[in-house]
Amino acid sequence: MTKFSFKNDYSEGTHPRILEALKESNSSQEDGYGEDAFCIEAAQNIRKTFDKPNAAVFFISGGTQANLCVIASLLKPFESVIALDSGHICLHETGAIEACGHRINSTHSTNGKITAQQIQSIFDDHQNDPPHMVQPKLVYISNSTEIGTIYTKKELAEIYETCQKNKLFLYIDGARLGSALCSKKNDIKPTEILNYCDVLYIGGTKNGGLIGEAIVFKNPELAKDFPFHLKQRGALLGKERVFGVQFREFFRNNLYFDLAQHANNMAEKLSSGIKNAGYSFLSESPSNQIFPILPNEIIDKLLQKYDFYIWTKVDEKNSVIRLVTSWATPESKVKEFIKELKNR
Amino acid sequence: MTKFSFKNDYSEGTHPRILEALKESNSSQEDGYGEDAFCIEAAQNIRKTFDKPNAAVFFISGGTQANLCVIASLLKPFESVIALDSGHICLHETGAIEACGHRINSTHSTNGKITAQQIQSIFDDHQNDPPHMVQPKLVYISNSTEIGTIYTKKELAEIYETCQKNKLFLYIDGARLGSALCSKKNDIKPTEILNYCDVLYIGGTKNGGLIGEAIVFKNPELAKDFPFHLKQRGALLGKERVFGVQFREFFRNNLYFDLAQHANNMAEKLSSGIKNAGYSFLSESPSNQIFPILPNEIIDKLLQKYDFYIWTKVDEKNSVIRLVTSWATPESKVKEFIKELKNR
Amino acid sequence: MTKFSFKNDYSEGTHPRILEALKESNSSQEDGYGEDAFCIEAAQNIRKTFDKPNAAVFFISGGTQANLCVIASLLKPFESVIALDSGHICLHETGAIEACGHRINSTHSTNGKITAQQIQSIFDDHQNDPPHMVQPKLVYISNSTEIGTIYTKKELAEIYETCQKNKLFLYIDGARLGSALCSKKNDIKPTEILNYCDVLYIGGTKNGGLIGEAIVFKNPELAKDFPFHLKQRGALLGKERVFGVQFREFFRNNLYFDLAQHANNMAEKLSSGIKNAGYSFLSESPSNQIFPILPNEIIDKLLQKYDFYIWTKVDEKNSVIRLVTSWATPESKVKEFIKELKNR
Amino acid sequence: MTKFSFKNDYSEGTHPRILEALKESNSSQEDGYGEDAFCIEAAQNIRKTFDKPNAAVFFISGGTQANLCVIASLLKPFESVIALDSGHICLHETGAIEACGHRINSTHSTNGKITAQQIQSIFDDHQNDPPHMVQPKLVYISNSTEIGTIYTKKELAEIYETCQKNKLFLYIDGARLGSALCSKKNDIKPTEILNYCDVLYIGGTKNGGLIGEAIVFKNPELAKDFPFHLKQRGALLGKERVFGVQFREFFRNNLYFDLAQHANNMAEKLSSGIKNAGYSFLSESPSNQIFPILPNEIIDKLLQKYDFYIWTKVDEKNSVIRLVTSWATPESKVKEFIKELKNR
Repeated sequence: MTKFSFKNDYSEGTHPRILEALKESNSSQEDGYGEDAFCIEAAQNIRKTFDKPNAAVFFISGGTQANLCVIASLLKPFESVIALDSGHICLHETGAIEACGHRINSTHSTNGKITAQQIQSIFDDHQNDPPHMVQPKLVYISNSTEIGTIYTKKELAEIYETCQKNKLFLYIDGARLGSALCSKKNDIKPTEILNYCDVLYIGGTKNGGLIGEAIVFKNPELAKDFPFHLKQRGALLGKERVFGVQFREFFRNNLYFDLAQHANNMAEKLSSGIKNAGYSFLSESPSNQIFPILPNEIIDKLLQKYDFYIWTKVDEKNSVIRLVTSWATPESKVKEFIKELKNR
Repeated sequence: MTKFSFKNDYSEGTHPRILEALKESNSSQEDGYGEDAFCIEAAQNIRKTFDKPNAAVFFISGGTQANLCVIASLLKPFESVIALDSGHICLHETGAIEACGHRINSTHSTNGKITAQQIQSIFDDHQNDPPHMVQPKLVYISNSTEIGTIYTKKELAEIYETCQKNKLFLYIDGARLGSALCSKKNDIKPTEILNYCDVLYIGGTKNGGLIGEAIVFKNPELAKDFPFHLKQRGALLGKERVFGVQFREFFRNNLYFDLAQHANNMAEKLSSGIKNAGYSFLSESPSNQIFPILPNEIIDKLLQKYDFYIWTKVDEKNSVIRLVTSWATPESKVKEFIKELKNR
Repeated sequence: MTKFSFKNDYSEGTHPRILEALKESNSSQEDGYGEDAFCIEAAQNIRKTFDKPNAAVFFISGGTQANLCVIASLLKPFESVIALDSGHICLHETGAIEACGHRINSTHSTNGKITAQQIQSIFDDHQNDPPHMVQPKLVYISNSTEIGTIYTKKELAEIYETCQKNKLFLYIDGARLGSALCSKKNDIKPTEILNYCDVLYIGGTKNGGLIGEAIVFKNPELAKDFPFHLKQRGALLGKERVFGVQFREFFRNNLYFDLAQHANNMAEKLSSGIKNAGYSFLSESPSNQIFPILPNEIIDKLLQKYDFYIWTKVDEKNSVIRLVTSWATPESKVKEFIKELKNR
Repeated sequence: MTKFSFKNDYSEGTHPRILEALKESNSSQEDGYGEDAFCIEAAQNIRKTFDKPNAAVFFISGGTQANLCVIASLLKPFESVIALDSGHICLHETGAIEACGHRINSTHSTNGKITAQQIQSIFDDHQNDPPHMVQPKLVYISNSTEIGTIYTKKELAEIYETCQKNKLFLYIDGARLGSALCSKKNDIKPTEILNYCDVLYIGGTKNGGLIGEAIVFKNPELAKDFPFHLKQRGALLGKERVFGVQFREFFRNNLYFDLAQHANNMAEKLSSGIKNAGYSFLSESPSNQIFPILPNEIIDKLLQKYDFYIWTKVDEKNSVIRLVTSWATPESKVKEFIKELKNR
């Protein structure tokens, strides 16, 4: 490709330190299916970073798989998921949760974030008429969200309190967890986040990994059957070591957060440049996805040099675009983009 | 691990040329979900190697996932799979096919291979009493098989003829396809194998890849909905490029077959050394898994220096063990093992 | 029960003519699983009544089962259903459709009826991003609806046109089809309704039958695998004759519509009595379910003599109640109810 | 039909007392979904007859549905069923159990009965390699079996002991429980059978009921979510009263067993007549299905006057046929059949 791409945060391969780690570990003979020394050490690093010494940690090749395996493992057939209609499981996973047999009870939000009140309300609506209604049992949220916003500690604490009161599991899709936790607006420490949820998936693919994600169950009891679920869904691999090597590296010397920080920095520069140029945004995103509103005419010109998604139409003359930065986004390209924009 | 392992063919990382290819391709910005230049070129290389210019090619992270996605995509809810009870989908995939809703109609064989007659017989048994019986619609075989044997061209042709006569799909699980096609006993060329089946999965994980497998549908019409199935099962990844880079390399300069050839050579040396030492085998395996029968006492001693699976008990004093060689098995270790064996 | 019940239309057993028909047919020896003479004749009567000589007709024990069997038989795993969030499959079937693996794409309406525009809009929203989104393939509507309203011929024609344009199946849940087609406001003849949909379920349970429903596929090609689906879901019974006897009787001498007409007449009398007493309604229902808004105080008093559901709260002092009439509702009870109401 | 049918035990309608009970109860207004007075009383009668005052009792329209609902409600996704390959769930339910996601681990027997040893052996085979193998969790047996044999108390006690030792549920498919318990060879009392299993389905359809079956969970804790499962599978009906009326009658004055006794008596007479005429049998069946071996020539002649299934070929000249008697089989027809047979 000759155009520079702001389409997503998984356009490039992987951070060189990950490549190096793969090379260094290459000749070691290891057991399969997550029993290798690298997965074991990676899990240890994750437990330490997130301050949950007893957590159960698993590695998996992709996010949709993480979502469906976690959710299917925690629910009985007639139990359902509470989520926003903008949630990844609702919109962009081809019905993966329903394919496992579960209904998603969805509700709407303009800022990508569900509230404790919305959860309570859906829960209450399903208590009237057993056994004719599904029974909500798990709340799915994303942090950062699908439109780049992030949860505050207070919001998350309220949500988790509501979940616990109603015996609902809280599961955080952290495909972009790094960006959320490194955001300037974030007030949740890595050592705190598992205090406010039951299961967390830590995204590797979108944070500079080669491939793969980590799943953390705070309470290992919840995960005791999880390997069976993984295997049955085709998600337990002979070469889990590939994930182990990456996540060991991610959580050895802060690499995971360094990469996220870079992506956020680039997004912020892009953002303020666009703001300076006089444009507004769909949402106030403090993470690595930003959603400026631009005239269609200018969008067309930018598309000659850059790749990005047109998110949605605003009116006849303007549209929202999505720009995503990553660990690999060079500052020069950000500056160049803003310069182009201002020249228009 | 300090012991040398003959436990499986996915103990090590990946062949250095694959690592190199990952490094070289690393900074290229690519589209996600299989739309990248590497997957496109890899598919092209596969079409050429297997002489099917119109084949539809997909990449996926593991074998169980390949099996369940292919099978679930080809069957209606009431249709079933014909397979041996020793087949990987029957024994070691935690009911992945049934979890997709499909019955496996299994039968038994002592040499790991199903016959055309067995297929016909199962098919016939299910025609009497519609709609009270599942309807067989796909035949699953492995080549090489779970006990190291391989199909001859004649056997495969008969099976496929039976399948076509009865409108059954034939799907080959080629987790160890390389070893099968490079076996001294093999008479099927890569350019021929898709003449005798409808769908083929080409194993990467067990043939020196870092991670991942390729799926080939001879008739692209059969695959037109396949991306939806992949996505719904969590098997379509943002970074399919990782698979693309590997399979492009595998099928650029014969690397795939070179690696398989090495594994087979090592297995053959092991085999003849063990035979010379006076021991017999569970099956006559011409591929990279061999199953010698040894006294338990000797097995115990070997286990002090080597890692391998005890496959099954023969009698009070003897057991079958499984030894697996790979692209990475050094000849020195093979010689050492035989020497140890003879010294006992 | 000593109170008279307006809770639903399946409180009593069955119309005496059905009981009589069961008795008369009792000693005849018949084949099982729908191959009996009664089912065959019943299907014939239905084809004639609904003017579709080639339709495929099946009988089944309940409505949820009808819905799930029809829908699961028509969709591929990644295909979805378009329905209102007030639809029975969304609200009161414990996720039966999702348990078959399918997502429901729901939207909202205040009058219980979906519009062609809503269907088109949901369809369009799912065309952008294959294969990441489910693909809508079937529209589910109820007639009469869950709040007693009915579709006009024009509305239904528009919906079906939209379905056909987008290759969507249209399926009508006719749990209360009799009441819809016998409504004073209805302009769709029985001989016309299958011109405007692909599959129709004709409710027996709620229209005076002992137990059971009929499913009609206009195009028998669509139904060719349906018996396998029925059997797999536990819905094909050895004694389908029980359904055959009932539906033969229903559609022999207009019994089905006579019973519905009575229920509607009783509802209308109730309705106008309540209106005369000065009360208003949640919806303008021309069928056998009506939803008056009454003061809580009066509701409490009525509940001492009558059984009915409190549907929803209106404000601190008033609530909506649901009153359902049936083939068995005596006019005397209707008059008595109105008298009680007026006396308060 | 002009020929008399020995094809099955559900050829006729229902016993006159059941018809009468339906008529008598017809005008009573009742709640739906199993909350009616008849279901409540029927459950009470069943608890008493089977001497389990705390048992949870449910009613359902058919046997395949009973099997799939019970099994799906008791298993986690990766858990499997142990059953014979001749079991109804294996052979004649179109993969209903697999459609719920569960593997059946089957084994073979010549007399239709599984042994405690077979169960232990399958269980043991699945403990080696978690999480790669399904985990057996429930044993399915039929009594009487698919070929008319019955379990002795000793056999059943051994099976249940093996189940309890290995934490397996034992589920008895009693589609023909009446015939089993009324067999001359039976030594299990109705008050004892639930001592030897966890869940029991009591067949109504094949024992003179109009339609429907009863499911009994010995331990009500096991059944606490069962109504949700029933509803989700389409098995919880608005008019459960229809089942309630029947089973109340069945278990009021021994009717259930009287009907079974008659069927058994007729089978015995048939059996001894056939034996006297010099023919042998596939199995020694002491229940209402018998499997004589007759010359094809004679079979052809008998088929001119009687309806029955040809079960399987024995050799070129002889076949096994299945003759089934029921509560409705007149002794005159039995005598006539034997006479015809002897005249040949």
